[in-house]
Amino acid sequence: MYIKDPMSIENKSFDIINDGMNEHNFTEQELKVVQRTIHTTGDFDYQNIVMFKNNPIEVGIEAIKSGCRIVTDTKMAFSGINKGALSKANCTMDNYIAREEVFKMAKEKEITRSMAAMDFALQEGVDIFVIGNAPTALFRIGELINEGKVSPKLIIGVPVGFVGASESKEYIREFNIPTITTKGTKGGSNVAAAIVNALLYMAVGR
Amino acid sequence: MYIKDPMSIENKSFDIINDGMNEHNFTEQELKVVQRTIHTTGDFDYQNIVMFKNNPIEVGIEAIKSGCRIVTDTKMAFSGINKGALSKANCTMDNYIAREEVFKMAKEKEITRSMAAMDFALQEGVDIFVIGNAPTALFRIGELINEGKVSPKLIIGVPVGFVGASESKEYIREFNIPTITTKGTKGGSNVAAAIVNALLYMAVGR
Repeated sequence: MYIKDPMSIENKSFDIINDGMNEHNFTEQELKVVQRTIHTTGDFDYQNIVMFKNNPIEVGIEAIKSGCRIVTDTKMAFSGINKGALSKANCTMDNYIAREEVFKMAKEKEITRSMAAMDFALQEGVDIFVIGNAPTALFRIGELINEGKVSPKLIIGVPVGFVGASESKEYIREFNIPTITTKGTKGGSNVAAAIVNALLYMAVGR
Repeated sequence: MYIKDPMSIENKSFDIINDGMNEHNFTEQELKVVQRTIHTTGDFDYQNIVMFKNNPIEVGIEAIKSGCRIVTDTKMAFSGINKGALSKANCTMDNYIAREEVFKMAKEKEITRSMAAMDFALQEGVDIFVIGNAPTALFRIGELINEGKVSPKLIIGVPVGFVGASESKEYIREFNIPTITTKGTKGGSNVAAAIVNALLYMAVGR
């Protein structure tokens, strides 16, 4: 015997998450983002590591409501983002990692494909970067901002791992740009997608 | 300044993971699976929660080498699995969650789409189930095995969450079938994909 109604499952999940959290100072909107990261990882530690800088939720919701362009670093993050909500919001989303030109550029310049993908992405402008996997993508975005080549409204930067991930997030938090990031090694494409979905649901509903 | 060579990044990551782990009794092959789950989550806790039952790695590698059929519960897990290695192994992979018929069946039977997707999957036979998200999919697989409708070689069952996830994994571990699962709430599509990739790399390389 187990619950088979998707909305009951989700509601019950969020009740359990709510009950299990420590005392906190999150705003109601921040809480929705944090709880969705806990929901997607099963890991309450996210209440301690999700960081909001420069008013990212308000900016993100406004960008989504006005129909923005979102670029993800991985196909997994792309897959995890709710397409119904995205289309309701008139937002578009792209991912460049598997393109032939990106392979070529990465090889020629001796950079990662994730970095080359960012270089390609900015050609059409980017409102929201969603980086769940590659620290090098996040470092590259910082470089491109410094070079005046891109000016995103919001960066969701939650690369995971042990080589550069933590540092890439520290680096991007220093910019005077709205960011949602995590402290330390944890993160991932699923976490990145969960954060985007939390913003989408606040902006346009399910 | 940051490392831009993908293989250097990955090798350094696994060195750090190796150094950071507690003493353990994993076999060399189990260690590869566990370390890849840590790599994909940034979370050392996976060394405490990944469970192997009924010789799953040997069975999985053999299935992969003989060209098996893999079914995932989510598009995210599907996205995260290395397509190059998959095609080198002559394995095929399917995901049914977004199919029109699955929507319809779920609505008619008042079950989750994840459950309906499993019912559809077995029509073509399934060698390896890869469940990263939906406890209901894992419960359903157990029911279908009990009904004699499917006989998978291996189940990778790592649903995440607070409602039924832990229980679904306990349930599936009781079957006399090779399983790789996690204890407790943690898991996810990324973890599921990481486990499949670890098996693929052991079976056919990168």
